[in-house]
Amino acid sequence: MLFLNKSEIQKLDQNIIQTSVKKAYEIASSKDYNMPDRMHLSDGLNSLLLMPCFSGQYFATKLVSVFPEAVKHGQPSVNGVLVLSDNISGKPLAVMDGAAITAQRTGAVGGLAVKLLSPEKVRAAGVLGAGVQGFSQARYLMFNRRIETLYLYDLNPQMVENMIGKLKQEFYGVEYVISRTAEELVEKSRVIIAATTSHSPLFKAKPESLKRKTFISIGSYRPDMQEFPDVVIESADDVFVDTVFAIEESGDIVIPLKKRVAIREKIKEFSILLEKNTYDDNKTIFFKSVGMGLFDLTVSSAIYEIALKKKIGHLIDF
Amino acid sequence: MLFLNKSEIQKLDQNIIQTSVKKAYEIASSKDYNMPDRMHLSDGLNSLLLMPCFSGQYFATKLVSVFPEAVKHGQPSVNGVLVLSDNISGKPLAVMDGAAITAQRTGAVGGLAVKLLSPEKVRAAGVLGAGVQGFSQARYLMFNRRIETLYLYDLNPQMVENMIGKLKQEFYGVEYVISRTAEELVEKSRVIIAATTSHSPLFKAKPESLKRKTFISIGSYRPDMQEFPDVVIESADDVFVDTVFAIEESGDIVIPLKKRVAIREKIKEFSILLEKNTYDDNKTIFFKSVGMGLFDLTVSSAIYEIALKKKIGHLIDF
Repeated sequence: MLFLNKSEIQKLDQNIIQTSVKKAYEIASSKDYNMPDRMHLSDGLNSLLLMPCFSGQYFATKLVSVFPEAVKHGQPSVNGVLVLSDNISGKPLAVMDGAAITAQRTGAVGGLAVKLLSPEKVRAAGVLGAGVQGFSQARYLMFNRRIETLYLYDLNPQMVENMIGKLKQEFYGVEYVISRTAEELVEKSRVIIAATTSHSPLFKAKPESLKRKTFISIGSYRPDMQEFPDVVIESADDVFVDTVFAIEESGDIVIPLKKRVAIREKIKEFSILLEKNTYDDNKTIFFKSVGMGLFDLTVSSAIYEIALKKKIGHLIDF
Repeated sequence: MLFLNKSEIQKLDQNIIQTSVKKAYEIASSKDYNMPDRMHLSDGLNSLLLMPCFSGQYFATKLVSVFPEAVKHGQPSVNGVLVLSDNISGKPLAVMDGAAITAQRTGAVGGLAVKLLSPEKVRAAGVLGAGVQGFSQARYLMFNRRIETLYLYDLNPQMVENMIGKLKQEFYGVEYVISRTAEELVEKSRVIIAATTSHSPLFKAKPESLKRKTFISIGSYRPDMQEFPDVVIESADDVFVDTVFAIEESGDIVIPLKKRVAIREKIKEFSILLEKNTYDDNKTIFFKSVGMGLFDLTVSSAIYEIALKKKIGHLIDF
């Protein structure tokens, strides 16, 4: 069995990860997979999410624990393990850091949205939120576009400093700017990615100020969470979701939809872009991701194969 | 994170495992645990079982896959992984071979039943079924009692030969006898343990031939599976179950209960014996185990602690 930790996963070729996310969209369209509803277990304040998915040669089971009080003990509140198994025999093949897989696949989901839903010549972009997901979004943004100025904003400025420190090691020659407000970030950026746990919109805006911009929401995975003000989805020419579940699961869609039902008609599945990309530079775009186990499956399968080939990780007789 | 494979787990002190099973019974009585219903996912012919359990310092999630067609590819049909995590932070601490944990804890459940429900001076015993579970039952039987003659029976005699080969490495000075029939095994043994996947009783017997014997059923984990003929439970003075779920889940209880409701009154929880053992040598006993996630939790926690201390397994920066 192969064991891959966070730093081993982090070092892998971003292209492989993003290609695997694209493959997941294709499998989702072909319906050649079995993804049971994610299971949510509660133990007091703590949660355990179990996310299995079967398709083709492999199946993956991701275990994610959310222990809100862990931070009191100086520990991260979210932890995860992904078990990748052979879909012929059931034999477990690999155990990977689940949080690293989540960060990579979510980064690549954002990255693929940037690739298909933003101008090739975009040079100024912004990321709201400087946590693990924000960092991963920034990496995949810069993997897809030659960003010259990256605007960053977080309620905790120290987190932004740390994030810049890490990004500089990989992406040099980029001007990293800490925005004073989320409004300022939105104003100066052509592409805006939000990866926060916010329950209320991160900024205020007038419709005309949003024109021709691309908005990507990665947080807001519950109906009571919202990152972008209603005006974003209302102003958008096209709204894309990574899975149709986003329409019920994300406050960024649920909340404005309650007020203006007409928005519903604008919402399309992102996968249709893989066949025919209808994006042009004049469009205002809103993309919402809530993720799915199928991303974990295709990404972890690809990671497993490349890691075996390149002798990355620990191979243990299990 | 600590990784423990099958052979590392197999080598651990049986006393530690059996003490952990005893602890699980105590926790079950105190109700100081959270064990959600096991989740059963199907993918065509294949199944994935997810068994989480939270208690005290740890929580464990066992993933068991059952892929019936795997044998066609020369692979075992049952595989498993157990993830042990910290119950304060949610951080994963260890990954263990799930099948090995199951075999150990199930062996120890049988072993504890032997300890509390058979005469100390028993010298002749029998095990029906020479699979992984049968082997583990034999090990824990001989850990608890000084067996001089061990009778073994399986539909596949080669499996019995293999099992004897393995048992001889650990328990020498024992006479291993391959019984020609299950009837013969039952006749000659004072304690009879069944660990098969049988759907119909393994032998026929008259009530008088069962007197003062101890019967332990480990297989029969579904209502349509039965190891012992109805006459066993009917003749028993006392019937014990490891958990009350056995009354609904095991054909060894469900089937006779349908015919003779009076049996219900005889059924008691095994844990009551830990406070006051009512067994005496004149009693005929039937013990039925269906297992529970709490056994996996206490056993894997104890294994984790001892393995860390004795530097067993692979400790990897995860």
